[in-house]
Amino acid sequence: MYFIDKSSQTPIYKQLYQELQKDILQNYKPNQKLPSIRKLATIYNISKNSVAKAYSQLEIEGFIQSKPKSGYFVSKIDYKEFKSTTKTERPKLEEYKYDFFPAHLENATFPYKIWKRVYNKVINENTNFGFYPNGQGEFELREQIALYLNKHRATKADAQNIVITHGFIDSLNLIAKLTKPKLKHFATELPGYHIAHKCFSEFGFYISFINVKSDGIDLQQLKNSQANIVYITPSHQYPLGVTMPISNRLQLIEHINKIDGLILEDDYDSEMRYNTQPIPSLQGLNKERVAYLGTFAKALSPAIRVGFILLPNWLLKVYKNHYDSHFCHVSIDTQKTLAAFIKEGHLEQHIRRLRNLNRKKHNLMLECLKCLNHYEILAKDGGLSIIITPSKPFDWQKLKRLCKDQKLKIYLMQERSGSKQEALRVGFGGLNLNDIPKAIEAIGRVWNECFI
Amino acid sequence: MYFIDKSSQTPIYKQLYQELQKDILQNYKPNQKLPSIRKLATIYNISKNSVAKAYSQLEIEGFIQSKPKSGYFVSKIDYKEFKSTTKTERPKLEEYKYDFFPAHLENATFPYKIWKRVYNKVINENTNFGFYPNGQGEFELREQIALYLNKHRATKADAQNIVITHGFIDSLNLIAKLTKPKLKHFATELPGYHIAHKCFSEFGFYISFINVKSDGIDLQQLKNSQANIVYITPSHQYPLGVTMPISNRLQLIEHINKIDGLILEDDYDSEMRYNTQPIPSLQGLNKERVAYLGTFAKALSPAIRVGFILLPNWLLKVYKNHYDSHFCHVSIDTQKTLAAFIKEGHLEQHIRRLRNLNRKKHNLMLECLKCLNHYEILAKDGGLSIIITPSKPFDWQKLKRLCKDQKLKIYLMQERSGSKQEALRVGFGGLNLNDIPKAIEAIGRVWNECFI
Repeated sequence: MYFIDKSSQTPIYKQLYQELQKDILQNYKPNQKLPSIRKLATIYNISKNSVAKAYSQLEIEGFIQSKPKSGYFVSKIDYKEFKSTTKTERPKLEEYKYDFFPAHLENATFPYKIWKRVYNKVINENTNFGFYPNGQGEFELREQIALYLNKHRATKADAQNIVITHGFIDSLNLIAKLTKPKLKHFATELPGYHIAHKCFSEFGFYISFINVKSDGIDLQQLKNSQANIVYITPSHQYPLGVTMPISNRLQLIEHINKIDGLILEDDYDSEMRYNTQPIPSLQGLNKERVAYLGTFAKALSPAIRVGFILLPNWLLKVYKNHYDSHFCHVSIDTQKTLAAFIKEGHLEQHIRRLRNLNRKKHNLMLECLKCLNHYEILAKDGGLSIIITPSKPFDWQKLKRLCKDQKLKIYLMQERSGSKQEALRVGFGGLNLNDIPKAIEAIGRVWNECFI
Repeated sequence: MYFIDKSSQTPIYKQLYQELQKDILQNYKPNQKLPSIRKLATIYNISKNSVAKAYSQLEIEGFIQSKPKSGYFVSKIDYKEFKSTTKTERPKLEEYKYDFFPAHLENATFPYKIWKRVYNKVINENTNFGFYPNGQGEFELREQIALYLNKHRATKADAQNIVITHGFIDSLNLIAKLTKPKLKHFATELPGYHIAHKCFSEFGFYISFINVKSDGIDLQQLKNSQANIVYITPSHQYPLGVTMPISNRLQLIEHINKIDGLILEDDYDSEMRYNTQPIPSLQGLNKERVAYLGTFAKALSPAIRVGFILLPNWLLKVYKNHYDSHFCHVSIDTQKTLAAFIKEGHLEQHIRRLRNLNRKKHNLMLECLKCLNHYEILAKDGGLSIIITPSKPFDWQKLKRLCKDQKLKIYLMQERSGSKQEALRVGFGGLNLNDIPKAIEAIGRVWNECFI
């Protein structure tokens, strides 16, 4: 006897389908005949249409088969379920009052309504979910990225030279693989983003650390190192925020050209500049000596996991020879949605809003920081954080301890950059504008207690 | 003078916003005052509300600033656009009449309506687009995968031990990194999936190739090789389709246990079995000696780029020590949608439909293949292809040439498996049921011409 609730929200055919499925799995034998549609309809006082629909669904899923003129029969079910008892407790995450992570965005700023609208418009039966996406990335997305970069970053980008990745590390890994046969000696900035050299050393590159001066990487030291692939953040140095002037850029390119090497230009947060004009990319000065790396993590969302590389032609050739059948790392729906999102102008508009909001946060934080004693500002005016360092002897361990007690999640400069000087990276991207005064006040109370 | 078209679909405020934006960028100077709301409303005979909305949008995006009691003023715009002339021609793709790729699914079978419904339900302001997703993968997705695997693959899975990846290669890369300090000698099946050993050899593992017999990998040869990490496809061997019986499974585990090694169980298409009960996973027999690898490429879509690893506890510990802050490779929206898709039962239902459809395709293809002369079947009854080989001397180069002429895209066994014997892998997954007779007839005409 099946239980059919005619007042339920669940359609009658679906209820019958579920009851029949259970019954078949538990009580029927292969080839056993099922009651006719008419009979079931009569017994349960439901329409023949509902029964036919339930049977049709069971047939599509392989539970039963119809035989012309003789009715419905149970199939030989060639799969089964296993008994399972596992239960996992959800791990408890530590809760913080304020998290100053320098690469968070405020969730509320993500344009999820527009994103969903675009998603719903572009994802349809023409989206090919049955094949692996193009290994290099969907052409329409590469095209939009090229147009965007040329307009806003003064690159010389062609969609043909772009490879879509799932983020910065994925981009680095690919470049390490592509360049390994030719370039063996990798140089990075000190202080600099700790991930870059880790990745290249995993691939067996020899690593040199080159000091950063007030005008960017030390060119003489770089030349002396004899490194032939150099990773830099020329527009907004990580973590110090300095900008490499044009004369240094030209010298760097000349040097790399002479030694037949490669520059990796990481343009990770160039959109987030608050009080100065943007600096055109290095790639635009010489597209055969620079591989340009970007992501959408700072300008849109770190959670959509999309990055890209703009390859010189000679590296594109290496890519095509070795990775032509490689699988793209980003899902087709994210790629299509992002392409349309850029094409319709939403990205440009979103970045303007986000920059304006972040400028306000930046300026407010700068103001609020005045409640701290004895500090210097190491970096400001860009990105998602302000970096400060104490101007008097300071107990960093005590700062860590007190912040932990106060449930303030803080981030120091040394561990992620190899810097000799220690500093506090005060991120504002993930904080609400209204929370900034309270958050800085909380940090300030702790900070002022840590002088020795 | 701004152009406002009152009969347009575009809202009036948006038209005004666009006109004002252009005007500001081209003609205004910083701090220059804009006309009052009332004035613009009067000039263009539009509502003050529309003007206020346009101004508010311009203010949010940082073009203008309002000063209390004195009006709206142009901001110092600290970004600019660069001139761009790039234009890329879309590369032409080769068109095929029939593509027999053994890992395609028919696009029409993807449940995109349900997928979109689930997407629209779960993606909302609570989806955190502002932070990096959990490095190991969203807990709710890992939970659903664990439940699913335990029920359908008889694994002993716990959500804590699952890492979400963007697919099979990503999973392999991670395992290579995790195991490298301890295990140095990698064994793979011959013939076997060509990707696995390529990946491990990139990380410097020593590689042994172990022959596959009718009951799976040759255990004696494996023991003699002294390899301590072995990659196998025990449920449905790639490409030969053989299944490893339980006695061999137990022997393999005993051996690996003795040498303190690891088995990589690739369960790539276990859901697609057409005439036999599923074989429980190896992982369920010993969860500390087996790392289980799976993806959603065969059961749902190769285009959503989601895979996973089920790690033994000792490898999970290595992962947590070294990769705790690693970034997840899959976007938050794909993860959330997939989790809900599984939780609501759509995956189970979809797999039943897909298996039933693929069984029909498989059986029909088997029938149609009878139009070929002199062939033997090497593998059938599972996956997305049937593998055939000629039983008389055969000119493979001629087959390739003729297929190319006829616009038939074919895939041979040797290049992707290292097999000594050559064979044709006739994929049915990507073909429409109605097209199979014509597609096989086309292959048959060519095949029958290639005997020497």
